[in-house]
Parts: sequence; C-alpha cells; structure tokens
Amino acid sequence: MQAMEPAGPGTPGTLHPKVVAVFGPGLMGGSLALALPKVLPGVKVRVWARRPEKAQRLGEGEAVEMVTADPVLAAQGADVVVLCTPVETMEALAREMAPVASPGMLVTDVGSVKAPVVQTLTSHFQRHGNFVGSHPMCGSEQAGLGAARADLYHGAVCVLTPQPSVAAERLAQVRSFWSLLGCRLLELSPEEHDRAAALVSHVPHVAAAALVELLAGENPSFAAMCAGGFRDTTRVASGSPELWSGILRGNREAVVPVLDKLAAIIDDYRACLTADDESLLRAKLAGSARRRADITGGGH
Amino acid sequence: MQAMEPAGPGTPGTLHPKVVAVFGPGLMGGSLALALPKVLPGVKVRVWARRPEKAQRLGEGEAVEMVTADPVLAAQGADVVVLCTPVETMEALAREMAPVASPGMLVTDVGSVKAPVVQTLTSHFQRHGNFVGSHPMCGSEQAGLGAARADLYHGAVCVLTPQPSVAAERLAQVRSFWSLLGCRLLELSPEEHDRAAALVSHVPHVAAAALVELLAGENPSFAAMCAGGFRDTTRVASGSPELWSGILRGNREAVVPVLDKLAAIIDDYRACLTADDESLLRAKLAGSARRRADITGGGH
Repeated sequence: MQAMEPAGPGTPGTLHPKVVAVFGPGLMGGSLALALPKVLPGVKVRVWARRPEKAQRLGEGEAVEMVTADPVLAAQGADVVVLCTPVETMEALAREMAPVASPGMLVTDVGSVKAPVVQTLTSHFQRHGNFVGSHPMCGSEQAGLGAARADLYHGAVCVLTPQPSVAAERLAQVRSFWSLLGCRLLELSPEEHDRAAALVSHVPHVAAAALVELLAGENPSFAAMCAGGFRDTTRVASGSPELWSGILRGNREAVVPVLDKLAAIIDDYRACLTADDESLLRAKLAGSARRRADITGGGH
Repeated sequence: MQAMEPAGPGTPGTLHPKVVAVFGPGLMGGSLALALPKVLPGVKVRVWARRPEKAQRLGEGEAVEMVTADPVLAAQGADVVVLCTPVETMEALAREMAPVASPGMLVTDVGSVKAPVVQTLTSHFQRHGNFVGSHPMCGSEQAGLGAARADLYHGAVCVLTPQPSVAAERLAQVRSFWSLLGCRLLELSPEEHDRAAALVSHVPHVAAAALVELLAGENPSFAAMCAGGFRDTTRVASGSPELWSGILRGNREAVVPVLDKLAAIIDDYRACLTADDESLLRAKLAGSARRRADITGGGH
C-alpha cells in the first residue's frame, strides 16, 4: 500500500481526543507528550512511568495532567492510550489496564516489532477491539527523555498494522491520530511489517554492530582511519543495547532468515573476489548503487 | 603509531615544491589541484588527464600550468608527482614517466589499496627511490571533478606506508607534503594499511551494498520504511561501482579474510537469537556501542 499524505485537522474522520495516556516517557513517548499539546490544543496528556521522578522534565502542568506509576489511573477515561515502553513490557501493562478500557478508547503502540505485540495486545483488548498496532519510524540511536523533541513525529513514516478483525471506525481513529502528529501513513500486515523492519532496520543494526566488532583486538591505531564512511555505516550501533536486544529477540522469526540472506550475499561477494570476477562484482555494486538511489529518492 | 598534528609551513623539513604534477583529475586529484595554489602560493600545478577536455573546470590559469594527456610532459621537471587515478591504472603511468624521474622528485599516490601499489611503484622508481605510498582518507560516495573542493584534505587522516628501504629525507618530504595540505599523519606498513582499510572501509562498503541488495525482489513499499538509520548505514553503497570494484579486487587478499570474520560474527548473532540468549546478545551489542564511542570519540 502507498504512503499517504497526512490528513489535516478538520478532515472527515479526524479524531479529537480530550485525554491521551502515554505509557513510557522515553524518546518516543516523551516526544509524543511534548507534541500532543501543540497539535491538539487543550488536550490533557497523562504519562505513565515506572519511576515518575525520572519524568520530571514533562512536569505536571496545563498539558500534562499527571505523571503516575499506576497504569489504571493513567488509562481510565482516556480516549487514546499509546504504549511507548519496550515491547517486552507491553503485555504486563495491557493486562493491568484492559479492565478499564471503554468501547471508544483507541489503544495503540509504537513498538518496532509487530506480529507478537499485535497478537498479544489484540487478545487483551478483545472485548471492545480497542487495539491497532503502529510503528512510527522515528527512533534513533539516541534514547531517553533527554533526546525527546516535539517535532520527532513530523514527516516520519508511521506503519499501521491492523489485523483483518479491526473495525473500520477504529482504523479511522488510528489513522487520524498519527496524521495529526504529521506522520505519513503506510499499512502493512504485522508479518509484512516485521519482515520489512528486519530488512530496513534490524538486520542493518546487526551489520553495523558486527562491523564495529570486527575492530576488536586489532591494532588500536586503525581507529584513526575510521572516516565519515565508517561513522555513518555504524552509527546505529550506538543505540541502546537493552532496547535493541529486546527488538531483535522480539522479531527473531523475521530477523534470522534475513541474517541468513545477508550471509549469503556476503558469500557471493567473497566468491566474486576469489574468482576475480570483475563483471559480476561491478554488476552487484552497480545494482545496489542504483537501488539505493531509488530508495532514497537520489538523496544521500 | 599515533596520528600526528599537521606540521605548519616553516616547520623544519618542510617541502617547498615549485612544480606539482597531479595525475587524474577526479575527486581526489581535482581537490588537490584546487588546494595546492592555496597552501603553496606560487606553485605551478600540472594536471595529467586521459581526456584533458574533461578537466576544463581546472582551466589552464596562473596556478594550473597545463592539462595534458602526456605523462612524460606532466612529470618532467616536477618536484612532486601525485598519482590520483584508479589503482589499476597507476602501473602503466609509472612505467611511462619513470625514465624522467629526477633524484629529488617525490612520487606518491592516493590509492585506497597499498601493498600491491607500493610494491609495483617502488620497483618502477627504484633507481632514485622516489616513491612513498600515501592514502589520504577523504574519499566519499561522490566521485569526479564536479565534487572536488579545495578543503577536501584539510583535517583528513593521511596514512603513509613507507617501505623499510625508503630514505629518511624522502619520508620527510612526503610527511611535509601532506602536512601542508592540512592532513593528520599516520604511518603503517602497506600490509597493515590494507588490513585496516578492509576493516574500516572496504568490508563496510560490501556490507552496505549487501544491505541494499536484501531489498531486491521485496515488496517495493518497504522502501517507504527506510528511515535515517538505513540511509546512513548504506550511504557508502552509492559510491562508484567502477572505483569500488577496483578497490575490492586490488585489496582482495585482505578483504576476503575480513569478509569471513564478518560472516562469523553475523553467525554469532544468529546463534544468540535462535538460542534466545539475552545476556550474550546484550553483551555483544553493548560491546559494539562502547567500542564505537571510543572510535568516534563519543560523536555520532
């Protein structure tokens, strides 16, 4: 399905939530809490944090109504609940808050892995069909509330992963929510999303970490030769080990076959070099250069 | 050996060449031709180009004395000759110009592969020991004279790869030359250089091209999910296929074992995921994040 332009406020089907509960004030949740009052003037934002004292930056002001460690208190009466915690902690939170979910409540998440999350959360919110999975693609190697910013979502691609059972009105709600934040929308099945995420994000992360690991035990002065290319190629490897081990484990069913495919392509290059097959080597490099230009629209 | 600060003009041992011949007006050679008149006022720059009409941007003005397709004409009487052509064409040029090399002439190159280049060129310039290999680490995915700029070398690391037979005065000349251009110097043996280049540049290039190739044949809408991380991780894959097939083939003795090591690390990640070994996975990711911070000095 194609990426769509964001719907502006006032577009038919636009959601006007009065209360939004954001679970987990890290980079994604913190940025959401900062953005919501700007795109939804008058909205009340509630923040759930395991340790509310760590979310002081968000304060408890006009826009942020409360910062609490109680999931029921945060969720009860909210129009929209967004889970922004690491994927492995979402189920426990869902189990606690599901009893207070109202029929009109939209529950979504920002997790980088969708099939297991969507399956679990859909079942917890089965009664009212509250849940639709989302993945706004705007994480970075910087983590935590300190890196949060109100414009993080603006212009980002947000992948929606509705199951076939999701009601049309619920789908309209989640589309409207992310459009309000300025996201460009894409819809994929949870399984397609996970394969795509393995290809464009999770396996590149492993490759970047592996490229850094190659230097372990080598002459330390080699590090002085790491120019812009190495820096860029490995930038994502600076990401949080806790976050990324959760993502890779959560998506291992999609990641492992893509790792195998990567290993096979690396082996093709090895074969080109040992056979000194110049024309195949050039064709492979040219194919990737051309394909990358298509993907990035010719930009760097 | 440690990276050293650039020596300023006037430092003892500084070279004051009156005539510099630059072979190959691409990104590296073109930038050198633009930079030399700025750091060596009064210098005469000669440019050798296979097709001089393609090097019109450099003109033939006060600083650029001539643009010629004749290697002997370019080299004769020059104080410094810098080979900036693809590595596979350096030998033929060296063979043609070697008879006009004077005892005082410094011959160097900017090739990304050193062991085979250094061996070949050292033998061609054996009579006066003119040659010392260099590799200024400032290439980019942008190629050609159009991307050339006078400040390309400023602040770049330049690896010098002298053989043990190189005379002390010759080594002082080449150090002085690259210092004048603002490079930070590092000295490695040609073999150490090639292993380091495989680790920090050549194998990362293959990995980037392989990551792009993973998307071939997949749902085209996956490309819409390629965010900043994918862009950065694969940026180098936009480099010239001709240039990079030459580099990879030229350095295949160092590249193949590093590709094998990369494949082994990827296989370690696969094993962590299939065994769901969270602690090993975190330890590997944390090790790379920490090592990368050391390498980049904490920057991105």
